Amino acid sequence: MKKSILAVVLILNSFFLFAQTNDEKTIKEIYKSSLTNSQCYAWLDYLSNKIGPRLSGSTNAEKAVVYTKAQLETLGLDRVYLQEVMVPKWVRGEKETAYILDNKTKINVPICALGGSVATPKKGITAEVIEVHSIKELTDLGDKIRGKIVFFNRPMEAENIETFKSYGGCVDQRYAGAKEASKFGALATIVRSMNLRLDDFPHTGAQSYGDIPKNQYIPTAAISTNGAELLSKTLKKNVHLKFYLKQSCQQMEEVLSYNVIGEIKGSEHPENILIVGGHLDSWDLADGSHDDGAGIVQSMEVLHIFKSMGYKPKNTIRAVLFMNEENGGRGGKKYEELAQINKENHIFALESDSGGFSPRGFSFESDDANFDKILGYKNLFEPYLIHSFTKGHSGSDIEPLTAPNMVKAGLRPDSQRYFDYHHAANDKFDAINKRELELGAATMASLMYLMDQNGILNKKGV
Amino acid sequence: MKKSILAVVLILNSFFLFAQTNDEKTIKEIYKSSLTNSQCYAWLDYLSNKIGPRLSGSTNAEKAVVYTKAQLETLGLDRVYLQEVMVPKWVRGEKETAYILDNKTKINVPICALGGSVATPKKGITAEVIEVHSIKELTDLGDKIRGKIVFFNRPMEAENIETFKSYGGCVDQRYAGAKEASKFGALATIVRSMNLRLDDFPHTGAQSYGDIPKNQYIPTAAISTNGAELLSKTLKKNVHLKFYLKQSCQQMEEVLSYNVIGEIKGSEHPENILIVGGHLDSWDLADGSHDDGAGIVQSMEVLHIFKSMGYKPKNTIRAVLFMNEENGGRGGKKYEELAQINKENHIFALESDSGGFSPRGFSFESDDANFDKILGYKNLFEPYLIHSFTKGHSGSDIEPLTAPNMVKAGLRPDSQRYFDYHHAANDKFDAINKRELELGAATMASLMYLMDQNGILNKKGV
Repeated sequence: MKKSILAVVLILNSFFLFAQTNDEKTIKEIYKSSLTNSQCYAWLDYLSNKIGPRLSGSTNAEKAVVYTKAQLETLGLDRVYLQEVMVPKWVRGEKETAYILDNKTKINVPICALGGSVATPKKGITAEVIEVHSIKELTDLGDKIRGKIVFFNRPMEAENIETFKSYGGCVDQRYAGAKEASKFGALATIVRSMNLRLDDFPHTGAQSYGDIPKNQYIPTAAISTNGAELLSKTLKKNVHLKFYLKQSCQQMEEVLSYNVIGEIKGSEHPENILIVGGHLDSWDLADGSHDDGAGIVQSMEVLHIFKSMGYKPKNTIRAVLFMNEENGGRGGKKYEELAQINKENHIFALESDSGGFSPRGFSFESDDANFDKILGYKNLFEPYLIHSFTKGHSGSDIEPLTAPNMVKAGLRPDSQRYFDYHHAANDKFDAINKRELELGAATMASLMYLMDQNGILNKKGV
Repeated sequence: MKKSILAVVLILNSFFLFAQTNDEKTIKEIYKSSLTNSQCYAWLDYLSNKIGPRLSGSTNAEKAVVYTKAQLETLGLDRVYLQEVMVPKWVRGEKETAYILDNKTKINVPICALGGSVATPKKGITAEVIEVHSIKELTDLGDKIRGKIVFFNRPMEAENIETFKSYGGCVDQRYAGAKEASKFGALATIVRSMNLRLDDFPHTGAQSYGDIPKNQYIPTAAISTNGAELLSKTLKKNVHLKFYLKQSCQQMEEVLSYNVIGEIKGSEHPENILIVGGHLDSWDLADGSHDDGAGIVQSMEVLHIFKSMGYKPKNTIRAVLFMNEENGGRGGKKYEELAQINKENHIFALESDSGGFSPRGFSFESDDANFDKILGYKNLFEPYLIHSFTKGHSGSDIEPLTAPNMVKAGLRPDSQRYFDYHHAANDKFDAINKRELELGAATMASLMYLMDQNGILNKKGV
């Protein structure tokens, strides 16, 4: 009896060792392929330097659709196709102007309209400023803000290790500040840029007027962190200073755009689908090399690595380049809508939308059983200095996916520099390090490989 | 009996939990202090932008001694002092010139003399080029290299995850290439820059003629990676192309310089010494913000953090700012010499000399027992995304330390970008991220705190 148990244990052990060894070998090959033979850096160079900013509905966004589709078609995939999706189109218009009017002294400050904002009147808005640090503080002030420009100046907290936590703790000022200030009769809002360092770049980003009536929409803009410091300091000396703001952005009619998809058909279970993706649109102030050019070319690189290695996945693997993450999330919603119509069985989705920095790990949206299973892969990633497997948000584009039992993950690169560039004019190709980008692609491909090989646990009702 | 064991276990457990909780609290406070209240970024700004390149023996190196000593004196330490040390002084002279002469076409390429190299004759050297990829290949060629310029062109291997491994696999070409080529009558050597990416920056660094006679010293220079690629490609088409090289560097008399030391006296065991350090000198082509301005200000910041928190170490803690790591290592040797003369008892040394990037962990030179003990601290670092505790090289400046039983460690930041800047004109302050620098300082302070609290295991004969 004991002998037979021992035999079983030995057989299981050797099977396990064989699997580990095989996985180790494949993952080693994946990293080598990415670091020595990848196309992702060249693709990003083109997207950033030959195409440029890719806000939804812009000509550049359409160029990016055409380019990435054409590049995917060179990889020898089983299928490359587009999904039609209607997207909002917002245009910035001419460059914004803003200055502090401190008695007779005019001090220019760097600002940019927030995405979705309305314009100021043509002659601009001039008004006194009231500084607040939260929507609560604004609400408490109530009618005192009538006729004023509200200045949201709560900085991102420096002490968090994960900078996304600091972002999450601040971004309500940007997203909902105008809507809330409008209720009390403010003329406009300006918000301190979501940036941990002091510099002169204003950071744009989405904002929403929610369900307030259109005639109550007020202009809203971001001010650089240095500008915010200066304004706050000047306000302390002169509470009656005035602020001038002029912007001419506008919301246009929706336009037709596309998600771009490349696919390798599964050899055993083509009906099971695993996707890896990022978003093809960017804000309009820069190339969006980190947000999210990086995620786009890394997702494409995952397929390139698999084709280069001759890896034939058991399940169908898709790279999905989503349109319109930044100001509408329409691409993600459309993808899910079509997945439901086509009764597709998605088992896993991975998104890269946190910059092209050195990869540190993943965060998973998963039930406990699958998460435990995935934790078993951790040791395979250690030689590549990938240590962090946590539960947490995966990605905005894959958020709409609702297939029962599916697992979702987000690549988690080092987050320290992300908000230096996020939605600002310096999110450009020269802020990308080739090896960091390639390591991210390899890390994604390794997880895709393991999820393809081992599948997920399909517990009912999970 | 069983009950009493249980009691002991419970007491031990609660003691352990208490210690852990205390350590957790202190480490949290250390990180918060560094991320919200540190001086290291401002210090580095001054060192880089107000002083600049700090090659040993230069006026700037002396300015850096004066500045850092004065800054340490503001921290309320128990002692701030200098250690005299004689250092070599090498000067680059006027900017080097080099070009490829491909028939009648002259193509300029970016080069820089290697540290310690002799000059060319005033009119420069023009000669045919022979490309090799190793010292072995050179030796095999033997007399065929006589009268030629030897071009070492083995690139750093892209596929290693740790870039220092790739550096280690290549740097013999730079360090010993000229010495070896001289033996076979080469006129000069040029070496592909130790850089993983393709760009136009030549990277300098130390080289040594070893014990060959002075009259056999030949000029040696680094060529940018793009320059190396171009030269190699042009050579393939025209094996008889000529290369022109002119440099006017020279070795001067040795001069007096200093290590700078700041100290907090131990409250319980002042005779036990723990040091944290980096090197104050840099190469002459840039500020040396990463190499090793970062290590200097981080080491100073460790003391600043402890003073800010009112932490009173049990043992004596020193920040040691070593002089002359780059081309002589005299500061480290002098420190050890004086430690022996003064019969100092060093138990731990930590060096930061791998750039100011996001910290990832430490490498330790330690016996197994102490390493096992240190591995017990790993979980305390996980909340700060510090995961990598390995055995390995600590640092050049603390290499000479020979106190029996002592433990040495090196901070290991993310290494992907390090060789983009290393010893090149772009190793400047704008390549530093404030938070990454501060996280490094906090990581160092946390380890210093734990080593101070827990000491090392003093096994005889280890």
